[in-house]
Amino acid sequence: MAYEFKAVRRIEFSETDMAGIVHFSNFFRFMETAEHGFYRSLGFSVIMNQFDPPLGFPRVHAACDYKKPLRFEDLLEIHLLVKEKRSRVLNYFFRFQKLPSADGALPELVATAVLTVVCVIHHHDGRMEATAIPSELSGKIEVAPPELLKV
Amino acid sequence: MAYEFKAVRRIEFSETDMAGIVHFSNFFRFMETAEHGFYRSLGFSVIMNQFDPPLGFPRVHAACDYKKPLRFEDLLEIHLLVKEKRSRVLNYFFRFQKLPSADGALPELVATAVLTVVCVIHHHDGRMEATAIPSELSGKIEVAPPELLKV
Amino acid sequence: MAYEFKAVRRIEFSETDMAGIVHFSNFFRFMETAEHGFYRSLGFSVIMNQFDPPLGFPRVHAACDYKKPLRFEDLLEIHLLVKEKRSRVLNYFFRFQKLPSADGALPELVATAVLTVVCVIHHHDGRMEATAIPSELSGKIEVAPPELLKV
Amino acid sequence: MAYEFKAVRRIEFSETDMAGIVHFSNFFRFMETAEHGFYRSLGFSVIMNQFDPPLGFPRVHAACDYKKPLRFEDLLEIHLLVKEKRSRVLNYFFRFQKLPSADGALPELVATAVLTVVCVIHHHDGRMEATAIPSELSGKIEVAPPELLKV
Repeated sequence: MAYEFKAVRRIEFSETDMAGIVHFSNFFRFMETAEHGFYRSLGFSVIMNQFDPPLGFPRVHAACDYKKPLRFEDLLEIHLLVKEKRSRVLNYFFRFQKLPSADGALPELVATAVLTVVCVIHHHDGRMEATAIPSELSGKIEVAPPELLKV
Repeated sequence: MAYEFKAVRRIEFSETDMAGIVHFSNFFRFMETAEHGFYRSLGFSVIMNQFDPPLGFPRVHAACDYKKPLRFEDLLEIHLLVKEKRSRVLNYFFRFQKLPSADGALPELVATAVLTVVCVIHHHDGRMEATAIPSELSGKIEVAPPELLKV
Repeated sequence: MAYEFKAVRRIEFSETDMAGIVHFSNFFRFMETAEHGFYRSLGFSVIMNQFDPPLGFPRVHAACDYKKPLRFEDLLEIHLLVKEKRSRVLNYFFRFQKLPSADGALPELVATAVLTVVCVIHHHDGRMEATAIPSELSGKIEVAPPELLKV
Repeated sequence: MAYEFKAVRRIEFSETDMAGIVHFSNFFRFMETAEHGFYRSLGFSVIMNQFDPPLGFPRVHAACDYKKPLRFEDLLEIHLLVKEKRSRVLNYFFRFQKLPSADGALPELVATAVLTVVCVIHHHDGRMEATAIPSELSGKIEVAPPELLKV
């Protein structure tokens, strides 16, 4: 049973914009990186081709609150926490922290986010149909303790 | 006085992912495209270099609700509406519609979104400081009628 | 018979980087935009689903020479020219020009590029196999006059 | 003295396209990741703010040859090699290899690339002017042995 995952990445030049900071749209790519790492840590991939037709997790809601700017070469920790688990739906909470570059400094909270995904069957004709999360996966996922989910 | 702006773009191959649909992070780039077009329609640019130090509009909140998938070559209309106007803050609502490819068909709502931006001074040392939106710009912006802001 | 296509786009904020100019990787997305517009102008899509299994055009070579920086809100014209046509291969040349914002000014050449694509069958098991370009498409494409292909 | 650098990254979902493979434009972002890691390994950043006005390395030429497709969750090694060093110019060669996921398997060459960058002064008015690479940096860089630069 797992309720969290942490990914770390260094901010790349191509992720900045002319204001000198990380473009806000990239935080949505970053949360997905942590989400997919979470599935991998449980032995799954987000595209579950072991099922036929394959299953997937399209997004139905995504939101981000920006608190401080992130810059080139900053080290970013993306902390995923499971906020809610329903039959067909997973709801994640994310805490984005800039890791300190100097000894003794503290991490800085730069953003928080939520992401809601729904389990679907990818039918071979391109149609997507909501379905229950397979028990092999949902049985390994639990909701994080409430004190970890405070903004 | 203006409270809305519409931008249209055709979905590009590089905006799709291996699920065959537009990657969800791109909707945040699309809403920004409409926002910047809105400023241009009022005679401004989002980077207001006519002020010294220049002003800008970093994002403090962004959220999107996804209703239907968008695919390669779909024609997307991004409809920006001003939801709220405060001294230092603008809050936008967006309606994303897939325009019909055949005569007689109707547009399809694929997503809605909100974006909150705050006016800041970009100090020359890189620091950003919240400030009032210049009256030359805010005087041209009004809140949209409530019936247009219904989800 | 066609040997060229022109696409125009306005540079977006998310396409700039912290150096204040368009990130160099975006020129490769821009050349693809013109290439796909070229196929559409001939009545085709780059993903040719009217064939079963479908055909596609993966890239085997791409190169760009950068001459001047492009900036936010610049109007960019992407001029595609057919440089070479072989049984399975198309080779394109691109001229990127910044369109003048003031009357009387001249376009400025900002970059040139080449792109080589090969026609493949997308087998249902994911395998790709080189194949001849369908005559319905190749019969509409011709090589541009040599004087247009000079760098 | 250094003539090479290796970076490893796992392919992300947002880097794939509807053909199910990594979009070709991303290889240009990947080569830049290795280039910037190379400078960091020498104690420098690509934006050298310790100089006033700051120095930078805009690209003048970039090219990639694609040999095999890369897919979601593949582990990619980007091997940078210094191909040429001139007073104001650095020319890099890259070998992209897919690392094996199973024991005993061999890495697969998926692409090779070149990137030419020129050292410039970023004047405060936005103008860029070519200049010699500072000796503190160029003194740490040497050209790779020719046998490593064979395609």
